[in-house]
Amino acid sequence: MKDVSVGICGLGTVGGGTFNVLTRNARLIAGRAGCNIRITRVASRRAREDMDLGDVPFSTDIYDVVNDPDVDIVVELIGGYDAAKELVLAAIRNGKHVVTANKALIAVHGNEIFEAAEKAGVVVAYEAGVAGGIPVIKAVREGMAANRIDWIAGIINGTGNYILTEMRAGREFSEVLKEAQDLGYAEADPTFDVEGIDAAHKLTILASAGFGVPLQFEKGFTEGISKITPYDIAHAELLGYRIKHLGIARRRDDGIELRVHPTLVPQSHLIAQVDGVLNAVLVDGDAVGQTMYYGPGAGDEATGSAVIADIVDVARAVATESKLRVPYLGFSPDAMEDLDVLSMEDIQSAYYLRITALDRPGVLAKIASILSEHGINIESIMQKESELKDGRIPVIILTHTVQERQINRAIEELEALSDTDGHVVRIRAENFN
Amino acid sequence: MKDVSVGICGLGTVGGGTFNVLTRNARLIAGRAGCNIRITRVASRRAREDMDLGDVPFSTDIYDVVNDPDVDIVVELIGGYDAAKELVLAAIRNGKHVVTANKALIAVHGNEIFEAAEKAGVVVAYEAGVAGGIPVIKAVREGMAANRIDWIAGIINGTGNYILTEMRAGREFSEVLKEAQDLGYAEADPTFDVEGIDAAHKLTILASAGFGVPLQFEKGFTEGISKITPYDIAHAELLGYRIKHLGIARRRDDGIELRVHPTLVPQSHLIAQVDGVLNAVLVDGDAVGQTMYYGPGAGDEATGSAVIADIVDVARAVATESKLRVPYLGFSPDAMEDLDVLSMEDIQSAYYLRITALDRPGVLAKIASILSEHGINIESIMQKESELKDGRIPVIILTHTVQERQINRAIEELEALSDTDGHVVRIRAENFN
Repeated sequence: MKDVSVGICGLGTVGGGTFNVLTRNARLIAGRAGCNIRITRVASRRAREDMDLGDVPFSTDIYDVVNDPDVDIVVELIGGYDAAKELVLAAIRNGKHVVTANKALIAVHGNEIFEAAEKAGVVVAYEAGVAGGIPVIKAVREGMAANRIDWIAGIINGTGNYILTEMRAGREFSEVLKEAQDLGYAEADPTFDVEGIDAAHKLTILASAGFGVPLQFEKGFTEGISKITPYDIAHAELLGYRIKHLGIARRRDDGIELRVHPTLVPQSHLIAQVDGVLNAVLVDGDAVGQTMYYGPGAGDEATGSAVIADIVDVARAVATESKLRVPYLGFSPDAMEDLDVLSMEDIQSAYYLRITALDRPGVLAKIASILSEHGINIESIMQKESELKDGRIPVIILTHTVQERQINRAIEELEALSDTDGHVVRIRAENFN
Repeated sequence: MKDVSVGICGLGTVGGGTFNVLTRNARLIAGRAGCNIRITRVASRRAREDMDLGDVPFSTDIYDVVNDPDVDIVVELIGGYDAAKELVLAAIRNGKHVVTANKALIAVHGNEIFEAAEKAGVVVAYEAGVAGGIPVIKAVREGMAANRIDWIAGIINGTGNYILTEMRAGREFSEVLKEAQDLGYAEADPTFDVEGIDAAHKLTILASAGFGVPLQFEKGFTEGISKITPYDIAHAELLGYRIKHLGIARRRDDGIELRVHPTLVPQSHLIAQVDGVLNAVLVDGDAVGQTMYYGPGAGDEATGSAVIADIVDVARAVATESKLRVPYLGFSPDAMEDLDVLSMEDIQSAYYLRITALDRPGVLAKIASILSEHGINIESIMQKESELKDGRIPVIILTHTVQERQINRAIEELEALSDTDGHVVRIRAENFN
């Protein structure tokens, strides 16, 4: 049986998990891969005192891996942008195949990296970058190969989903965030997670792999969950909805919707039931309809599982020298379309609006007529006399689907109304139809 | 761009869906596959007046496809056992690759077919045979390649799941079955679906692909849903459970559990929320933990989607002539283990028991002591005075996990008790721990 040699760069959470699973399940993995996958070198800035690397040579210089002529596959698990990019490009120049879990790298520098890999005739694989252990890139690029994928919607950040899940018990965002930090679910600086940047990285990759368009991270829209209140969560529930932090990508004839924001989803839909740190990605194809992929979006061995699935695929490709590999973004470069990402004003959505209004006669009529003038139909409206406070009362409205442009203009007018407190809360809603 | 030529045998539901999607999305599929996939011949016993085959030659003799020297991939969609087996073996002898949606064929004759294909150096692919449009074979064989898969549990028959979903409203099995037949969800002879044979075919394949053991359909256990009552469904709900018709495969050191039966699952688990005709497969791996794959388990284009995903994979393999393909059952033949399927007496489960007892003093004590003598611990017990009828009252018990052997002996003694009506209802329960 042929040996394929793997060098791991980075021994943090995912690096450790990958090393441990590859070692523990070596025989089983060889049985699936048809070749022995051997870790022949490991490098990391910091040594891991808690890990037993056996007789695998360890180095603190990651370039010892990249420059080792015996390494077939370089596994990039150092994270970040610049150092990772240099490392991956150097590996490609050296004729190495690359497996990475780095979503930021692929979302931001993927077009350049794939082009370099294509020229060098090597493979760059990134399953572990999206939704951790869930093999969703494989599902989108290969499992759904027959389909025109129309949209993808995912809970692709476990930290955010944990926070929103806990907030359903009436707890405030800041309190749950602190708890998530204490539990190790959230970083000391939680920006990447709670502001949706991490999710936007993953969504960018999913959209490109699904639709066959270049990676366009910088054009996506991102809104975090830090302004979500237990009040809005409770009222969304009364309307039959649940608030999830979704990444949504939709393919339209005139462009791509690419957006991460808090979203009302019907409680009856399976994705509303995905709680805690877990991830789920819903993919809609013209032939298959809706499919969903669910599981752990993070964790040492869970993410390691996806890293190793890529290593096995690449190891098979190493042995075949085939030109007919699965294309990086699902489609051959010459079959890709140069569709632009649409501006948020052009997207379509339903909306939850919370308007704090003075309790005066005629206020509801004014609100309704502003919405009507902008062509916005109301699906539900809620106002409870018992919530009157300081002469003000919240009016909650769920609209039908309209263009974001229409809602923006209506909100401007609602906020300018002397009968409101000048601030309208707006959360987008999806029915997955 | 290279052309790969496909011949379709069978133009029923799935054949029609496959033809239509391959034709409609031809350009998109070529962009993903890196080659043009062209349907060059179609054969079916009966012509489809409702379909436009364009200029593709049609024949009523399926061997016109198998014997056409220009066909690279034979797509077997005629269904059934013997004729399909002959067709597939003939195609393999002619050096054709084969894609099939036929779970019965693979579950019963797969070992023989794979051996013939291995010798002939061709590929046989069967994604569409399990859970329709959900790419779960790909997930298990490739996406989870790093994992020792410990168990697989799935809702893999849409008809049965539709019936159990509708029965939650208090309706009887026979009434809902008739409705399902009228809606076209159930066959005139519903045995394959409601007695779990169809699910057992799929489970056999999933278990082999996940665990790396030969296909052993004939040794599996199958129990249908025709004896489930709205009463037991309602009482399972009171206990916090939902009754689903699950296929469960568990890998143990001493063998494989392989069983299809009605099962109580916790309402809080995502799989309990999978309703109607939809399918979902839960896979537990030692590295990744639990992942779930959800979507349509049947339908013309949904199943066609899986057929075409296989065609794309095979088309890439055709061009590479690689020896290092994904192994049929996930593992290279020499890496497979000869683990036997365990007898049902050896499986472990929790149990829901409904005992109809005479309303006499001391009955509960007798029941409890029989369970206790067999080492069976009780998790919950329910008995409502209001349900007393003709001097009899139902006693509902949920046990902890024990061996099926223990429950069988206890049920024998409970049924022999003069204080009961001689019939104990038993439904297995899973907590997915």
